Amino acid sequence: MGRVFLAAIFVVFAGRAMAEDGHEVWLRYHALPTAQAAQYLPLTTTLVAGRPSPTLDAAAKELRQGIAGLLRRAPAARERVSSGGAVVIGTPASSPLIAGLHLDLTGAGKEGFVLRSLSIDGHKATVIAANSEIGVLYGAFAFLRRMQTGQTIDGLAVTDAPRLMVRALDHWDNLDGSIERGYAGASLWRWQTLPAYRDPRYREYARIDASIGINGAVLNNVNTSANSLTAGYIEKTAALAEEFRPYGVHVWLTPRFTAPQEIGGLKTSDPLDPQVRAWWKAKVEEIYKAIPDFGGFLVKANSEGQPGPQDYGRSHSDGANMYADLLAPHGGIVMYRAFVYDDPGKDWHLDRVAEAYRIIKPFDGQFRANVLVQEKEGPLDFQPREPFAPLFGAMPKSNMAVEFPVTKEYTGQGVDLTYTGFMYEQIYKSDTYAHGPGSTVAKIVMGDYGQTLTGSAGVANVGNDRNWTGSIFNQANWYAYGRFAWNPQSSARAVGEEWARQTFGNDPKVVSSVVGMLMASWPAMMDYQAPISLTFQELDSANTHYGPWPWLDSPRRSDWADVYFNRADTTGLGVDRSHTGYNTAAQYNSPLKEQFDDIRTTPEEFLLWFHHVPWDWRMKSGRTMWEELQFTYSRGVKGVEAIQKDWNGLEGKIDGERFTAVKQYLVMQHRDAVWFRDASLAYFQTFAKRPFTGGYKPKYPLEYYRKLPPNTAPPE
Amino acid sequence: MGRVFLAAIFVVFAGRAMAEDGHEVWLRYHALPTAQAAQYLPLTTTLVAGRPSPTLDAAAKELRQGIAGLLRRAPAARERVSSGGAVVIGTPASSPLIAGLHLDLTGAGKEGFVLRSLSIDGHKATVIAANSEIGVLYGAFAFLRRMQTGQTIDGLAVTDAPRLMVRALDHWDNLDGSIERGYAGASLWRWQTLPAYRDPRYREYARIDASIGINGAVLNNVNTSANSLTAGYIEKTAALAEEFRPYGVHVWLTPRFTAPQEIGGLKTSDPLDPQVRAWWKAKVEEIYKAIPDFGGFLVKANSEGQPGPQDYGRSHSDGANMYADLLAPHGGIVMYRAFVYDDPGKDWHLDRVAEAYRIIKPFDGQFRANVLVQEKEGPLDFQPREPFAPLFGAMPKSNMAVEFPVTKEYTGQGVDLTYTGFMYEQIYKSDTYAHGPGSTVAKIVMGDYGQTLTGSAGVANVGNDRNWTGSIFNQANWYAYGRFAWNPQSSARAVGEEWARQTFGNDPKVVSSVVGMLMASWPAMMDYQAPISLTFQELDSANTHYGPWPWLDSPRRSDWADVYFNRADTTGLGVDRSHTGYNTAAQYNSPLKEQFDDIRTTPEEFLLWFHHVPWDWRMKSGRTMWEELQFTYSRGVKGVEAIQKDWNGLEGKIDGERFTAVKQYLVMQHRDAVWFRDASLAYFQTFAKRPFTGGYKPKYPLEYYRKLPPNTAPPE
Repeated sequence: MGRVFLAAIFVVFAGRAMAEDGHEVWLRYHALPTAQAAQYLPLTTTLVAGRPSPTLDAAAKELRQGIAGLLRRAPAARERVSSGGAVVIGTPASSPLIAGLHLDLTGAGKEGFVLRSLSIDGHKATVIAANSEIGVLYGAFAFLRRMQTGQTIDGLAVTDAPRLMVRALDHWDNLDGSIERGYAGASLWRWQTLPAYRDPRYREYARIDASIGINGAVLNNVNTSANSLTAGYIEKTAALAEEFRPYGVHVWLTPRFTAPQEIGGLKTSDPLDPQVRAWWKAKVEEIYKAIPDFGGFLVKANSEGQPGPQDYGRSHSDGANMYADLLAPHGGIVMYRAFVYDDPGKDWHLDRVAEAYRIIKPFDGQFRANVLVQEKEGPLDFQPREPFAPLFGAMPKSNMAVEFPVTKEYTGQGVDLTYTGFMYEQIYKSDTYAHGPGSTVAKIVMGDYGQTLTGSAGVANVGNDRNWTGSIFNQANWYAYGRFAWNPQSSARAVGEEWARQTFGNDPKVVSSVVGMLMASWPAMMDYQAPISLTFQELDSANTHYGPWPWLDSPRRSDWADVYFNRADTTGLGVDRSHTGYNTAAQYNSPLKEQFDDIRTTPEEFLLWFHHVPWDWRMKSGRTMWEELQFTYSRGVKGVEAIQKDWNGLEGKIDGERFTAVKQYLVMQHRDAVWFRDASLAYFQTFAKRPFTGGYKPKYPLEYYRKLPPNTAPPE
Repeated sequence: MGRVFLAAIFVVFAGRAMAEDGHEVWLRYHALPTAQAAQYLPLTTTLVAGRPSPTLDAAAKELRQGIAGLLRRAPAARERVSSGGAVVIGTPASSPLIAGLHLDLTGAGKEGFVLRSLSIDGHKATVIAANSEIGVLYGAFAFLRRMQTGQTIDGLAVTDAPRLMVRALDHWDNLDGSIERGYAGASLWRWQTLPAYRDPRYREYARIDASIGINGAVLNNVNTSANSLTAGYIEKTAALAEEFRPYGVHVWLTPRFTAPQEIGGLKTSDPLDPQVRAWWKAKVEEIYKAIPDFGGFLVKANSEGQPGPQDYGRSHSDGANMYADLLAPHGGIVMYRAFVYDDPGKDWHLDRVAEAYRIIKPFDGQFRANVLVQEKEGPLDFQPREPFAPLFGAMPKSNMAVEFPVTKEYTGQGVDLTYTGFMYEQIYKSDTYAHGPGSTVAKIVMGDYGQTLTGSAGVANVGNDRNWTGSIFNQANWYAYGRFAWNPQSSARAVGEEWARQTFGNDPKVVSSVVGMLMASWPAMMDYQAPISLTFQELDSANTHYGPWPWLDSPRRSDWADVYFNRADTTGLGVDRSHTGYNTAAQYNSPLKEQFDDIRTTPEEFLLWFHHVPWDWRMKSGRTMWEELQFTYSRGVKGVEAIQKDWNGLEGKIDGERFTAVKQYLVMQHRDAVWFRDASLAYFQTFAKRPFTGGYKPKYPLEYYRKLPPNTAPPE
């Protein structure tokens, strides 16, 4: 009876507990197969933590919870190593036991850790040690990850430390709860109920960040409101900082450049005006009084309508350095965005993608030591296929940070499976030649050439959806962003495999299919959205930045228009950025500049980016450009079909809830891919004036596509 | 070992399963105390369902899940009643067993049910029977509710049926995922991933609606986009309808009046134009082809910038009847909003609160039989204290529906605990005198005076927050809306008690405290927001409709301004709506019109609504109006303190997660209440020019309050 009763409860609870709604992300401590658990059990019988503190408690709690879930048996808490299988955690300062081991923690640096298998007092022990408490926490997550991904936890001699100092998620969240380019519900931050109400998700969010080494959260949109700097909002921000603190996530803010006027009552916001500086000084002190570990300011100035130093006849370095000087005494940092382009009132005669380089490069060497110049990964704007931004190879005297998309703005939004890890790797391993061959973007960002401050910012894809990111596969992008910020020389495939194992388990077929899907997803999307590096802006009438609208011109400014970026005409397609055109290829270092300048030596993947290519241009495949365009769009559609097939082959190996959700998403993605192909080719054919080839023809006439409202891919 | 193993799993799962995050709302089938369960167990041993169907399956599933949870033992499925304690469900059509019982189902009507304790073949049985499948489902929820709230399930002879035909939730959700006046995250409807992705929450939402009898969901904002009527969006809407269908929730749409021009390519949207009618006819047919049980259109026309028939020189009845005629063949209904007010381009010389009556009353008798004229509960706009809208007493030849707030727009938004059930009762029991004494709003809406179509619409408070509504107590408003739509003559206290028992359990102290908090919440909010019926519009700079900004004038139109509604000047406060002023009191039937016209006979709770009252006017309390104003604001603050005390007394009797969340919300509410009191009185004192009394004084000077950004109540 007792047993039946227990079993009945078990069924009731299990039904509820096992809902695979994605809320756990990759921190899924579900029971491992018995054989695997048997390897780990003898090594995790007790947990020895040193002096308690919020961060060390978080590490201990994570280990208890993780081991209890994975191995179905929690480690017993012990004061010392008194039997075999101890897990010992701490810093030399927090734990006399760790101090007494005299481990070499040099390689762990400020935030890294060591994992060492040792014998202590004759007992087998695993030590998770670091110079800092946050290092211990990162080590705890690394230790658990080993079990989740089926690696050994015996004989460990691991030292690991982050290669970037600032590893920030940038939340483009507005104070009204909306998120610019957010596809996972509303903002996690509920300004209205802060500071009193502490949504448990605040701490859950910080824990997830910490599990992949993210140490900063920029809370408010780069298109910002001065209100976030008022006393009331600083109090609210301090409450979030308090919730994040045990997990080592520092809060950052985006300051409104005109705040001295908007909320300070001053007549100017000139960064060189003494009253303005005094106002900001007092404001910075007010912030640090409330938030002693405040990260700093991420600044968008003089771009897309945001105010900035140029409005007062001052330079970008004047603006950045004003903030930098005031933050420096508190240890704060400025991330100053290089995503700037000028002349908003005028029509556009220059090359939009040349602007960041043109405007920011002259200031190389003029920024303070605590400024990171933050450049988007490509010269335009998070598009699926761009060459790396040439500014990375042109700022030898500056600290350069990279800004990556995590959210899928142009690249699939709420729908398409698009693994950004692929892009991170492509960009980071691009060779800038700035310091000779091999001077990759990764090395520049990591400070290998003398930069003293390093970092990256990822535009977050997190919202208040139960699964945080709108779909399970979007979680892979959050994961990859953190892992690449930890180590820019990571492999997209290896990171993807880690994520796949943690998220779906270690079944070989599941792992190989999911990794294959991840790695195929970005190439497929480039094919059906940006074939041969055709660029688009996707400015539909609702400004969603999604969907094929190659015919759109902008009533506001020509460089916010698809036609500006595809330059389709009867002679061909693409933008001439060689010396016969904008000459933007010259922004790259040799030998790239020469290579990109010549249509014959430009890699075909960047052909339409650098050249206006005749419709009959003969590609390496033997096809004409017009034929290749059709071929590539169609290859993108087939790529989605292959991904669908991979996933469908996992039926029965993945729980029903997640299996069905992903399957349904992929149906949507296929529809999108067909839509991109057909709408784009229907339009371009009006210029190419050549027949469709290979039996292909768009399903609907061009007018049909032109009339579709946002978010409605045509039925297949 | 096996037992230890089971127990270990149990602990791991239980820890996760029991997270009290509010997702279950009131459908919490947690185990009842043993003694209580013992009463119910013998009566629920088996479940006998008739022929399967989606709705009957939903009923059976609900009973299985509910009984298994509440009593820790699921009923066994049986084909017939073969032992005692059977629960038998079905309609005469679906179940020969039910048909053979020859129950009198007359009182159950189209959607109601009977619960009968019977003996069948010598065995004790409880029959849940209805004329319709949805009635059976409603009956299943009612049966489970009895157990949840500690009532007997023996000797049942219950017949219950809804008193309104249309019981709709109106979602002011925009196609971009935002919600106008939504304080619980983003829209549940993810247009971008529909129709392919079927978020499990769609069906969960419909199930919650069904549990309280809601049978309609208007999916899109009354401030609408024509895009929702395009083929792509109809396909998406049909997918939602499919998810809702088993739970009897019909989808409705708000049509954009100018859709024939915007998406149909016509030159006009004149409702009398044959081409326009043909366009709508085809559109309606397209909708019903995709959604055979489509509910109909909820129309906002010629109000707040929405287009409507007046733009083409046609009347409101022309507009409503065009839709009505086209929907009628399909069984569709038009809910036509009376929330209209004119002359948007001009300054305002008329009484804004008189407009719905002035504009709509002349059309009484001109609307088709399938039109519901939908009037907000008060004459202005969901404010905390308004008299009932006089239009309810002025449309004897029309079907009148009431529109209630469920979301807390002016009345607390994401923060304050405000039980709208109190308002529903107050309004429904208001006597219109339209058909002599006793002709309450409830009776008019229920059709007691010959109306053939009845209904209500509640502006939803649901978002994608895990707990659906942003806070646990907001769930009470959803619950109350449904229960009052089922029976407009419900008692707010009784409904609140049902909710409290289902949500927090049957502990007498918990029940009495929670019910006390609910019932005290609305009066407290009226005191600190709208003392003596002082009206406000709360139009701060961010248009949040929240916070005390009594000094605000509107640059756009004077009737969108707080000063227009409080009329504070050196002579007094309030709006003269007597015959010496706007004469709006005359819109009420006798004897109300005479009573409201005279400052001496106007109930004091409506004094500042109907009269401009001198600062020294002597109130019944003996205090002057200025003193009474201070007294009332302060009573509101004290009311919140009493609610806090009630809640804090439940520590240990409520799980920690919900206890802490509510406690933190109440801290915020107290801060809000103090803010309302102090900012308002600091402002009004500049007109009253009389000293603050009773030791009271606002904490900050007026200028401080004037400069606060939205959502930042001053620190206490």
